[in-house]
Amino acid sequence: MDEIVEAEGHLIDSQLLNAMFDTVVRHDAAFEVLEFRIGRTNDEPSFVSMRVTSPDQAGLTGVLEELVGLGCRVAGGEDAHVTPADRDGCAPEDFYSTTNHRTSVRLGGEWLPVERQRMDGVIVIEGGRAVCRKLREIRAGDAIVCGIHGVKIVPEFQERDRLGFAFMSNEISSERRVEVGVARIADMMRAARKAGDRIAFVAGPVVVHTGGGAYFCDLIRGGYVDVLLAGNALAVHDVEQALYGTSLGVDMESGRAIEGGHRHHMRAINAIYRAGGLRPAVEKGVLTSGVMYECIRRNVDYVLAGSIRDDGPLPDTVMNLVEAQDRYTAALQGVKLVLVLSTMLHGIGVGNMLPAWVRLVCVDINPAVVTKLADRGSSQTIGIVTDVGLFLRQLASALHEGQV
Amino acid sequence: MDEIVEAEGHLIDSQLLNAMFDTVVRHDAAFEVLEFRIGRTNDEPSFVSMRVTSPDQAGLTGVLEELVGLGCRVAGGEDAHVTPADRDGCAPEDFYSTTNHRTSVRLGGEWLPVERQRMDGVIVIEGGRAVCRKLREIRAGDAIVCGIHGVKIVPEFQERDRLGFAFMSNEISSERRVEVGVARIADMMRAARKAGDRIAFVAGPVVVHTGGGAYFCDLIRGGYVDVLLAGNALAVHDVEQALYGTSLGVDMESGRAIEGGHRHHMRAINAIYRAGGLRPAVEKGVLTSGVMYECIRRNVDYVLAGSIRDDGPLPDTVMNLVEAQDRYTAALQGVKLVLVLSTMLHGIGVGNMLPAWVRLVCVDINPAVVTKLADRGSSQTIGIVTDVGLFLRQLASALHEGQV
Amino acid sequence: MDEIVEAEGHLIDSQLLNAMFDTVVRHDAAFEVLEFRIGRTNDEPSFVSMRVTSPDQAGLTGVLEELVGLGCRVAGGEDAHVTPADRDGCAPEDFYSTTNHRTSVRLGGEWLPVERQRMDGVIVIEGGRAVCRKLREIRAGDAIVCGIHGVKIVPEFQERDRLGFAFMSNEISSERRVEVGVARIADMMRAARKAGDRIAFVAGPVVVHTGGGAYFCDLIRGGYVDVLLAGNALAVHDVEQALYGTSLGVDMESGRAIEGGHRHHMRAINAIYRAGGLRPAVEKGVLTSGVMYECIRRNVDYVLAGSIRDDGPLPDTVMNLVEAQDRYTAALQGVKLVLVLSTMLHGIGVGNMLPAWVRLVCVDINPAVVTKLADRGSSQTIGIVTDVGLFLRQLASALHEGQV
Amino acid sequence: MDEIVEAEGHLIDSQLLNAMFDTVVRHDAAFEVLEFRIGRTNDEPSFVSMRVTSPDQAGLTGVLEELVGLGCRVAGGEDAHVTPADRDGCAPEDFYSTTNHRTSVRLGGEWLPVERQRMDGVIVIEGGRAVCRKLREIRAGDAIVCGIHGVKIVPEFQERDRLGFAFMSNEISSERRVEVGVARIADMMRAARKAGDRIAFVAGPVVVHTGGGAYFCDLIRGGYVDVLLAGNALAVHDVEQALYGTSLGVDMESGRAIEGGHRHHMRAINAIYRAGGLRPAVEKGVLTSGVMYECIRRNVDYVLAGSIRDDGPLPDTVMNLVEAQDRYTAALQGVKLVLVLSTMLHGIGVGNMLPAWVRLVCVDINPAVVTKLADRGSSQTIGIVTDVGLFLRQLASALHEGQV
Repeated sequence: MDEIVEAEGHLIDSQLLNAMFDTVVRHDAAFEVLEFRIGRTNDEPSFVSMRVTSPDQAGLTGVLEELVGLGCRVAGGEDAHVTPADRDGCAPEDFYSTTNHRTSVRLGGEWLPVERQRMDGVIVIEGGRAVCRKLREIRAGDAIVCGIHGVKIVPEFQERDRLGFAFMSNEISSERRVEVGVARIADMMRAARKAGDRIAFVAGPVVVHTGGGAYFCDLIRGGYVDVLLAGNALAVHDVEQALYGTSLGVDMESGRAIEGGHRHHMRAINAIYRAGGLRPAVEKGVLTSGVMYECIRRNVDYVLAGSIRDDGPLPDTVMNLVEAQDRYTAALQGVKLVLVLSTMLHGIGVGNMLPAWVRLVCVDINPAVVTKLADRGSSQTIGIVTDVGLFLRQLASALHEGQV
Repeated sequence: MDEIVEAEGHLIDSQLLNAMFDTVVRHDAAFEVLEFRIGRTNDEPSFVSMRVTSPDQAGLTGVLEELVGLGCRVAGGEDAHVTPADRDGCAPEDFYSTTNHRTSVRLGGEWLPVERQRMDGVIVIEGGRAVCRKLREIRAGDAIVCGIHGVKIVPEFQERDRLGFAFMSNEISSERRVEVGVARIADMMRAARKAGDRIAFVAGPVVVHTGGGAYFCDLIRGGYVDVLLAGNALAVHDVEQALYGTSLGVDMESGRAIEGGHRHHMRAINAIYRAGGLRPAVEKGVLTSGVMYECIRRNVDYVLAGSIRDDGPLPDTVMNLVEAQDRYTAALQGVKLVLVLSTMLHGIGVGNMLPAWVRLVCVDINPAVVTKLADRGSSQTIGIVTDVGLFLRQLASALHEGQV
Repeated sequence: MDEIVEAEGHLIDSQLLNAMFDTVVRHDAAFEVLEFRIGRTNDEPSFVSMRVTSPDQAGLTGVLEELVGLGCRVAGGEDAHVTPADRDGCAPEDFYSTTNHRTSVRLGGEWLPVERQRMDGVIVIEGGRAVCRKLREIRAGDAIVCGIHGVKIVPEFQERDRLGFAFMSNEISSERRVEVGVARIADMMRAARKAGDRIAFVAGPVVVHTGGGAYFCDLIRGGYVDVLLAGNALAVHDVEQALYGTSLGVDMESGRAIEGGHRHHMRAINAIYRAGGLRPAVEKGVLTSGVMYECIRRNVDYVLAGSIRDDGPLPDTVMNLVEAQDRYTAALQGVKLVLVLSTMLHGIGVGNMLPAWVRLVCVDINPAVVTKLADRGSSQTIGIVTDVGLFLRQLASALHEGQV
Repeated sequence: MDEIVEAEGHLIDSQLLNAMFDTVVRHDAAFEVLEFRIGRTNDEPSFVSMRVTSPDQAGLTGVLEELVGLGCRVAGGEDAHVTPADRDGCAPEDFYSTTNHRTSVRLGGEWLPVERQRMDGVIVIEGGRAVCRKLREIRAGDAIVCGIHGVKIVPEFQERDRLGFAFMSNEISSERRVEVGVARIADMMRAARKAGDRIAFVAGPVVVHTGGGAYFCDLIRGGYVDVLLAGNALAVHDVEQALYGTSLGVDMESGRAIEGGHRHHMRAINAIYRAGGLRPAVEKGVLTSGVMYECIRRNVDYVLAGSIRDDGPLPDTVMNLVEAQDRYTAALQGVKLVLVLSTMLHGIGVGNMLPAWVRLVCVDINPAVVTKLADRGSSQTIGIVTDVGLFLRQLASALHEGQV
């Protein structure tokens, strides 16, 4: 069994051609390059056409499914196959599962760009448009793209850009000079703000424990935070520090542990409950400083998603996670730059929602967390292994210098 | 301002006396030991009575609150102070915030043991009983214990037991012989099963990725798993492996990564959706092996709690986290031994729900995770830094040997 | 300024072409592909010829130096430039600094393969042969290869081999099934033994602490260890366990820490001193078990290199590190497979000495250590993140099964 | 078999009493407290006298040896037992192995303080003085203290000092506000300089990779570095950066990796060789900036100890490790504060040489390294988990502010 596939673009720079060859061999299939035109300079694209051969149809389908994910399209000009869903929440068995890369589907001979691109979704055709949807959002009768014909993705080709983003994304190590990364990120943030692009932060409570809260407040006041996506813990520790000067029972000034620090924690929650929530607490003068205070004052779009480990939670925390995922997704519309600070859970959640071309910066002191967050098949992700409190201090300082 | 407090028990062995003195000094208060009787042998308890002096009432209250958490009681025989809640979900401002230690409150001159002990709760008096409750469960009018008078906790004194549990709990390091820990844990599991005590497992998807699934199935079939608390990811990866032989797109036999492995992931979710859930999938013969299959066949009490990063999720996953927390708590009733395998999120969630005297074993390859999970102020927690797949293999083998 | 360079081989599979393009752009230089012939199937090599342009000679030299390291040669057929060293221990300023890849130099129009290939050396021409030498081994008058003309390296092209070595080398993660890796390594070890190739182990004291010593002894007795390269600590902890049953003051059977365990440590050293060294201790019956005992009994070629942190050290430990490096290098001659177990220090030392085509397996529970050890520009390196004690248990068992 | 032991001091605060009881039980021995006087306030010492009983003499000796290490002395007033060494480099079998705590031996009824205290040594009596010596330094005929009679150690009792050193030493976590720690360390450094105490730094090459070099130079110029103990790698990377602006082949300004960066590395070594060493390189104007340059200019006492992984090494690197250990030890005389920055190897080496009362601050981004370095049975050690480049930036800034 064989099929001819084609691809074009920066196939060598982005290591796609290598990935395609690897994929074929890994599936115990074979390839024969029919045509290859190399870009002669850094700016020219390359083109490849190759015949893929596999002993049986199942094997061929398997390898072709992977090749499509790498940017190959089946040659020959067939339209995408579309099958109606037979019931709510379920796709046909051979549904096309989306990646986070820019995708088009061929319908009536035309290539139609897919909207609301995200990974692990299905493509639904409605009213002449192609839209990404989650499995649970499928309704019976929805026209679902199935198989691999007439589907084309365009991976983000690794840019060799002036900000050096791509070159920074190669390696994750704690043995790097963080000041260089901070300067680049400050440049990107200033450029985003100038262009009117939205910037989102995804932040864990370690931001507060490590003393980064005050610097994060600087960023909010400077207008660099359009969206804050977090969990209950960030808000509770922030409130605890605002009300009692402690975080996790550690005095933030002296560094002394306070054995019964949990009492502060629970009293902070109780105080917000008594006020009726974070916003009322700000309005009533109960909460007068901290990250949540600044967010509310500056109308930052924030969503606190619940988790199984939450104390309380605060009235603001969304404990229904279907709703929380939907609100995260909504808040991320129009965002072009995301910084994930010390939260694997919410960082992975956000990473799953983003198209590949949104820039993602992951900062954590644990290299394994950074590696995991950065592993989303996108060259638009960089990881920085450092102390998040000191990182925020440097970032606030770099943005301040640049503002003059 | 001063107050006299007393405590008794294994104050030295459990380092409580040291913690008490530290606490006083940290609060810039002073202590004077009025009486101290030391246990002359390993079995005898000690007793201390001391005067604590602080410059002002607020300082004194602060230090006393901490001392109560360490097992001191205010001398003099006052009853607990009780204040009715003025509205739902809120406690009076000076409410007593619970620890996970065995607690009693003094009412009418009698010490009443607190039921459903857990940390970060309040104590409600109703019908002559004292019960732990979460803040959000308070209803207006509930009689809430406030302040520190008439409250006494009994910390778990560090046992020097025949199973060597306490001695193992001292240090967390990857430079230990795991086989020794496995043998101890196998002993505890056999003892628990013999005594009719319930054993709970809290497991992350790494159990499947590292090849531990098959050995975990052995434990289930051997009757060593009464409760399984996990998230959506464990179940999805387990089903993916059962249906396609892969986990996270890695072939479990050859170890080869499969670029488009996410397709398997999403198809596994779709297949369970089509079947109507995990149990129907087992009944219809769609799911015929794996951890969830064995749980369903063996009537293991399982709860899957949702999280913001979930794909799908499976129909069985509880996305309302208030409900998920309640179901976790319910499943943990009567459990005497909990093993947390490679999941910080669900492990911390469970740790928050457990009284201090339930034994908790935390296994993870990342020492920072183990340290964090084990840090719950209980001598009943041990941490093991190792590869969880190989750990499960050893554990299944140790339990099998012992069964002969 | 411009120059034409050429390269051939598996340029795409091994990501060399991409690396070449990256290098040019990173140096603010430009490339123009003059000719490119792609391998049509997995077995056929590719060929590229390209013109590299840089604004000045220094820039051009910089980029060409890197390109040579990636397998390019300057087109045009010039011989290598050779300059005599003007004094001992120093090379001419523009000396060619070697990589660990297979290298040839062009002399009299002929390509001469370089002997004793290692990285960070110089190439000396003597008696019609080209030999790698360390800077400190240079003697005044030695003919040193300088510049980049007439130098050609052949990187290890990533094999897609039957043992799946290359496929395993892609990713380092603790979330992998170690059993798969163990099976592959066991296959490689059996193949090496059958082919008469030497196998070396580089082992840290964690091998002993984690209880892997007994399984390592199995490997030695099975004939799978030809060379053992370690430090003083491995031997001291091994002897301590053999004499007292403890390692680092932890009882290996009960897992109990022994506060004063250092006394065992020092007494073990004293006992070997009294015997006159490890071999006399074996001969006199002082040392009757353990890793060093088995090495001595089986005539394993072992070298213990000293370090600044050594206690004692044992009489066998080589405290002069120039000598230790030379002895390590000598012991590695003819070795085709190296396993590094939980020792970053000695592992990096050995990695520096090995040509790229020697297979290197790095095992450590810390992913950062594995990443660092595996980062030597060779596709012949795989990293496994796991518990080294359990790893050795599995490996000994896998080799035993295969022996039947 | 039984024996009576006594101890006095801050037995509870420093958890010594608990450790003593634990030790007895762990040895399957029993204790009976004969007398206990508790310190009534924070300033008063406590006193304990107890009878320890064990089934046999070997068991009793074992438990007593450990108890002596915790500060107990055998009651009854016997002098220390002294045995002459029968040959060079060997101690009698029952030699007393030292800890790093302040020790005295009883001779002629008088308690004699031990000089040059360090751990893992022996005590030699000569000319009426008691001196710590390494095993390898013993000469036949030396009078060696053996057994446990007449030996008394005084552990560092945990201070509750104004700088909060002790309170900081409790926990090692990346979830701490590093700014608090930096402020304390700056206070200690200023206090040390004012008192004329020497400050030593032990630094790994990560100081350079993370961009900390410039800030470390600030500290040297500010007079805060009396001693620098490091390895070859720190110096080579420092020189590489000074000469080429790169470290490990990474451009320190742009953060771009340079594929062939090793060439810079080797050329830096060659350049120093050509100059005849670091000091001549400074004198000849070859080396004009960087850490080593500042050390030489400021007459900082530096020692570079070799290791098996060293490239080159530089002429200054001491490759004979017996000499390197001796020079490290000599440089540490009179040092009262040591900062270990990102080097486990040299940090452990230095830790082994220091008496318990020298303050040791360990900074590393890997919590496991900090835990290991801080684990030396001394309350004078604190660990900080952070990015060492940013840490140095903060520290230089904190010291500068304080100087005004």
